[in-house]
Amino acid sequence: MAQVPKSVQKLIEAFERLPGIGPKTAQRLTFYLLNAPREEAENLAKAALEMKEKTTFCSVCFNIGESSPCNICDDAARNQSIIMVVENPLDILALDKTNFKGLYHVLGGVISPLENIGPSEIRIKELLPRLKKGVVDELILATNPTVEGEATAMYIQRLISPMDIKITRIARGLPVGSDIEYADETTLSRALEGRKEY
Amino acid sequence: MAQVPKSVQKLIEAFERLPGIGPKTAQRLTFYLLNAPREEAENLAKAALEMKEKTTFCSVCFNIGESSPCNICDDAARNQSIIMVVENPLDILALDKTNFKGLYHVLGGVISPLENIGPSEIRIKELLPRLKKGVVDELILATNPTVEGEATAMYIQRLISPMDIKITRIARGLPVGSDIEYADETTLSRALEGRKEY
Repeated sequence: MAQVPKSVQKLIEAFERLPGIGPKTAQRLTFYLLNAPREEAENLAKAALEMKEKTTFCSVCFNIGESSPCNICDDAARNQSIIMVVENPLDILALDKTNFKGLYHVLGGVISPLENIGPSEIRIKELLPRLKKGVVDELILATNPTVEGEATAMYIQRLISPMDIKITRIARGLPVGSDIEYADETTLSRALEGRKEY
Repeated sequence: MAQVPKSVQKLIEAFERLPGIGPKTAQRLTFYLLNAPREEAENLAKAALEMKEKTTFCSVCFNIGESSPCNICDDAARNQSIIMVVENPLDILALDKTNFKGLYHVLGGVISPLENIGPSEIRIKELLPRLKKGVVDELILATNPTVEGEATAMYIQRLISPMDIKITRIARGLPVGSDIEYADETTLSRALEGRKEY
């Protein structure tokens, strides 16, 4: 069998370790870089190193930023009285495209007994001091509408409920542009439960 | 809108330039590396740089290797009288898993008028001196069974036909384990044309 040069094999393996990249994709990416100009590979390598050097977790919301507190926590123009709880920094990227202008809190995961992740493994306790200052009056639970996301939201809701803070959960229903015909049962039930007067 | 830190954005862009990696995948890979231990990012960066430094194109067959001539061309145990013409080095990886034990010739692409790639842009002329030595008695055309691959095979066939060399083309037909019911018309026609006595 043809032997791939060792240095090529190493890059294939490095790509394979990334999530969602299988052996074939790893090969394709590697051979693309092999044929691409030298700068392309250097550019990727430099970007990966620089990102690890320059980024840090925000000490307030645990989002990723180049400073701590991050741009969002540091932005006085944002509404300090609403905190949206999300699973990971990518969720902030998506949610901040809406017109939400409050603050965030990144859990860094969800409660998942199957993967041995309990409430203390994610950043729930770090949320409490933020709520105790008395500035916050609404906490939006925006974990994913999955089994784990719902369980995590419920856990936080129970923990916070003694405090005088409005707790809301993002709506589950039919995605915009979708087709009722193809929607699953649970989504349809949720859409009906969450119906509003027209 | 939330601003991603510049260094994070740069890595997302570097990933996006890779083939088959869209903006969402690039984001996911980047945020994976953000959360992964530092070594993971360093490992990827080092592998990419090292590969570019250590690899070279074989001066005989234009495969990728750490030496020139490559391991395959240098292997006296291989049958020097058969050359298989392929589009790119990845094809060698796949084909060498069969029991083919001849040599290869990597074109580095296919003739594609739509992309302005003519016969002189790929390594066809480099094939001629290899055939003129009189050692080769079979040339297997193993370009992909696509429009461009077939055109390239036909071009090479016409070019080589005056020489006293047997020219063969890999068989097109039903892939092993497939279902006639779902096969496309062209593949079925090819499978019938290529039928053999039982």
